[in-house]
Amino acid sequence: MGKIERKICGYTFEEFIERVKAFHGSCAPGVIIGGVMVDVAQKHLPPGRFYDAICETSVCLPDAVQILTPCTIGNGWLSIVDFGRFAIILYDKETGEGVRVHLDPQKLSNFPEIEAWFLKKKAKKEQAIESILREIRAGGEEILRWEKVRIRPETYRRPKLGAVAICPVCGEAYPAKHGEKCLACVAKEKEAQAI
Amino acid sequence: MGKIERKICGYTFEEFIERVKAFHGSCAPGVIIGGVMVDVAQKHLPPGRFYDAICETSVCLPDAVQILTPCTIGNGWLSIVDFGRFAIILYDKETGEGVRVHLDPQKLSNFPEIEAWFLKKKAKKEQAIESILREIRAGGEEILRWEKVRIRPETYRRPKLGAVAICPVCGEAYPAKHGEKCLACVAKEKEAQAI
Repeated sequence: MGKIERKICGYTFEEFIERVKAFHGSCAPGVIIGGVMVDVAQKHLPPGRFYDAICETSVCLPDAVQILTPCTIGNGWLSIVDFGRFAIILYDKETGEGVRVHLDPQKLSNFPEIEAWFLKKKAKKEQAIESILREIRAGGEEILRWEKVRIRPETYRRPKLGAVAICPVCGEAYPAKHGEKCLACVAKEKEAQAI
Repeated sequence: MGKIERKICGYTFEEFIERVKAFHGSCAPGVIIGGVMVDVAQKHLPPGRFYDAICETSVCLPDAVQILTPCTIGNGWLSIVDFGRFAIILYDKETGEGVRVHLDPQKLSNFPEIEAWFLKKKAKKEQAIESILREIRAGGEEILRWEKVRIRPETYRRPKLGAVAICPVCGEAYPAKHGEKCLACVAKEKEAQAI
């Protein structure tokens, strides 16, 4: 038997690994599993719609989303709500309806290498990336759980940046709605007063 | 005379524009100027060192950094401190010494199209991307200001994520240091109490 042909958003497993190395700098298990998560989410979303993304951690997952979807931090279609949970949400820009996928720690018993990595049961230097990848390849979806979610309008309808002001303290441009000074200068003043 | 040959971190202007379109989804002026900013910062940093990045806004600039440097959100080498200022900092991972580059609104008088875009003096549909790009290409560095900075150790020495716990409420994994429940479940409880 040959290797199981697991595709990740249209890429072969090897192609995806190469893209992860190029963007993320290393073949981190969190980004590879993140790729499977994005793939699972996309399969459960209606086609032909535009969606935004939320990652519930800033670790690894945002890079899987940025590699595999049009959503990036800089274009505003990817947000991070840093609960420290290993979960991603893809949701319809217009309706807020979407899919949340997370790695379920209860589903790891048949995947000892992923479990050791995810729950930090082994020191990093004892983890074998090849074994972890083999397990992801063999059963990536089985360790995940997905559910339908609905994002609130106040979350998915982002307020516009609005008018630009020049900060009277630092002389730089900032969103006028922040107030009479930019937030950096406000923070500096607070710090100076505290000393 | 031919076009001015402006290189951005080793890429030609056209190559960089193609990379921006592929990653960011459109040729946004903020990402293009962000590229010039990264280029300026790198020129003033000693070679052969490893550096991390900070963007002072989540708009556009993080994508320039992620396209041109090894720093991404998911690998932790790029952070966002969202002051809403159009500035990036690249700094030495070991020493915290680095360079901050920002777009200086006082330097825009010879760049009317960039000024109209940056200070929102024209509606978006009236802005001509070709004219903005021409101005960036002609004088991109002239609109910037750079300075040496030193990042504090508590900023650049990020605390480790540490041990993993399973949340007794949602059953998902989270950083044990967050407390007895994950932050998402704490937030949900607070909200329920407020109603």
